[in-house]
Amino acid sequence: MAIQFSDRVNNIKTSDTGAIMKLTAQPDIISFAGGLPAEELFPLEEVKASVVKMLDAEGQKALQYGVTNGYAPLREQIAQRMNSKLKTDVKADEILVTNGSQQGLDLVARLFCNKGDVIVVEKPTYLGAISAFNLSEVEYVEISTDENGMILEELEEVLKNNKRVRMIYVIPDFQNPMGITWSLERRKRFMEIANTFEIPVIEDNPYGELRFDGEFLPSLKSLDTKGLVLLLGTFSKTFAPGFRLGWIAANKDILDKCELIKAGLDLATASSAQRVASYWINSFSLDAHVAKVSEVYAKRCKAMLDAMDKYFPKEVTYTRPQGGLFCWVTLPKHVNAREVLLDCIDKKVAFVPGGAFFVSEGNENYMRLNYSCSDEEKIEVGIKRIAEVLETYVK
Amino acid sequence: MAIQFSDRVNNIKTSDTGAIMKLTAQPDIISFAGGLPAEELFPLEEVKASVVKMLDAEGQKALQYGVTNGYAPLREQIAQRMNSKLKTDVKADEILVTNGSQQGLDLVARLFCNKGDVIVVEKPTYLGAISAFNLSEVEYVEISTDENGMILEELEEVLKNNKRVRMIYVIPDFQNPMGITWSLERRKRFMEIANTFEIPVIEDNPYGELRFDGEFLPSLKSLDTKGLVLLLGTFSKTFAPGFRLGWIAANKDILDKCELIKAGLDLATASSAQRVASYWINSFSLDAHVAKVSEVYAKRCKAMLDAMDKYFPKEVTYTRPQGGLFCWVTLPKHVNAREVLLDCIDKKVAFVPGGAFFVSEGNENYMRLNYSCSDEEKIEVGIKRIAEVLETYVK
Repeated sequence: MAIQFSDRVNNIKTSDTGAIMKLTAQPDIISFAGGLPAEELFPLEEVKASVVKMLDAEGQKALQYGVTNGYAPLREQIAQRMNSKLKTDVKADEILVTNGSQQGLDLVARLFCNKGDVIVVEKPTYLGAISAFNLSEVEYVEISTDENGMILEELEEVLKNNKRVRMIYVIPDFQNPMGITWSLERRKRFMEIANTFEIPVIEDNPYGELRFDGEFLPSLKSLDTKGLVLLLGTFSKTFAPGFRLGWIAANKDILDKCELIKAGLDLATASSAQRVASYWINSFSLDAHVAKVSEVYAKRCKAMLDAMDKYFPKEVTYTRPQGGLFCWVTLPKHVNAREVLLDCIDKKVAFVPGGAFFVSEGNENYMRLNYSCSDEEKIEVGIKRIAEVLETYVK
Repeated sequence: MAIQFSDRVNNIKTSDTGAIMKLTAQPDIISFAGGLPAEELFPLEEVKASVVKMLDAEGQKALQYGVTNGYAPLREQIAQRMNSKLKTDVKADEILVTNGSQQGLDLVARLFCNKGDVIVVEKPTYLGAISAFNLSEVEYVEISTDENGMILEELEEVLKNNKRVRMIYVIPDFQNPMGITWSLERRKRFMEIANTFEIPVIEDNPYGELRFDGEFLPSLKSLDTKGLVLLLGTFSKTFAPGFRLGWIAANKDILDKCELIKAGLDLATASSAQRVASYWINSFSLDAHVAKVSEVYAKRCKAMLDAMDKYFPKEVTYTRPQGGLFCWVTLPKHVNAREVLLDCIDKKVAFVPGGAFFVSEGNENYMRLNYSCSDEEKIEVGIKRIAEVLETYVK
């Protein structure tokens, strides 16, 4: 058959990560591989009550097409919550509801980038963002990070010398995959640089509310004086991902263009799901729910750190997250985490090899560990198993 | 501010259609402008019962992330229904669930087209498809149509001479905007041509089940012997659009690539909405619901045709749909429907000027009239008002 696919499709790399990850889906495996929120915490009965209440109150219009920018009361709730939690100053008409923040990633790449344009990303960065951005056939420059965030001297150098940079994509809070959080100083200096070069900033903030240690830091969007920051938010980690509800917060002139794209993409996000979330927020307590989730994740994170402290060989280092879902483990340079994983799967424990989170090749001595999906007991057993495998590699 | 947007965004035409359409949203207007299904027919109580039943049975996993290709029982139900109604022979793993068929339109353009590639479309065609395809920066060739479908001599000529054609986009059943249905002969000959040139065919079929007159005709997909047809389906017209549930049906090798794109676009369509639809189909009767909707649309269509027969000047012609949601009205060449609309809005009645459904310029003597959203009485009143305006133009 002579069907011709587009270049963007022909260039999708069929990495071995997918094949490996299928191995980790066996039911008897302790998996630190996923990035899912803890399912047992989803407010099932509250959702049921909210759906019934919503359908009784709204009637059939809740099942009709909705407007492209999103259900107005929900956009109002999102703006209020952002302003309260992230210290921003956004209005409801600066919010566009998307199908999770993943759709926001695709949308912003299409908004700013032609084929061959450059997106600056953290090294490492969220692999789902790379999958989304690749569909716009972009190039990347990775900027090194330390425990306080992006190395800004490196960023400045890149922006000076690379005229095709169209946006900077960052996850300043509890970064995926590293679990690190940018310091306040780093945030301020970063925004100065973005302002100087007038480069749009995509601030991906799926985990920001899930802080269980340390103090909340202002979002980049709250430090934005030139309307350069597009913040991507989501209810997937603070409510439930099964509704696919995220949003883009941006200045109105940018958001209007986002809305034009969104209309072409899928007309609008499900009006029924938006109403359910809105009624749930009005009827119950998002604050209480987030507090409950954060408390559980705090315990699981501590269990993972304690177990790593106890069992991991001293040659192995790891981040100590103050929130979010992930730890990032650095192995000695000569150890390949993909090989470690295969041995771990034999011992019925799994994680994501860190190489998947880099655009560049040759970063194979890392592991991303998720702690949100397993209880403390399983976490200790699983980490102990990984430690046993690591012992055979670091020698 | 020096923010640079992508070419695809800069090239979005800010047509006056949007501005005009805003005028039609006044509450006291009789609007034939929308394309919405009749809201009062949505099975609200059945949906409520289905949601409760689903949440009780499925528990918290119904609120978790779902797999990219879609909820397996729903894909099975879609395949069965397609095979029963559209005479296809598709399997559940040849179905990818999308956010309405609008997302399918974006997805297939990204699957097949590089910038500057050509999509062949009917003249006129669905304007939402053009909005979606434009995001992939494609070009178009329009093929003339008569009351039996695309003029195939013209199609053949184009395929012979244009090497950049990457797909053909068609709506063979109750076409939007024209309301016409391709004849069986036309369908067969069309597939022979597609087979000869081995060009992918996008068969958009949102209205196919809503036939209220004449006999069901086989879908292009059912006549597809070479795996060239991607059928786009949707629950928006047969169930409710507020869940944003559509699908792509295609051969597995093509569908696997669609799934790779979908993962980048938004990971997956809402797992909760997919389960609601699946439970509703299992608990109630989609057949009965479709029959009820079709019966109502039949009456409304008849009311519109009767009123046009009675009131419209003889210089004006129109299609006589056997199903779907739309009539297509042809005015004398010198009459501009955008001007007619402005006068109609003064008389509190609205429609979409047909020029919006063409890629080429200068097709202003058409009107698209939607009959699904107004009862018979309103339809007669509205058509009479349009007729009064038309009298002043055709003289």
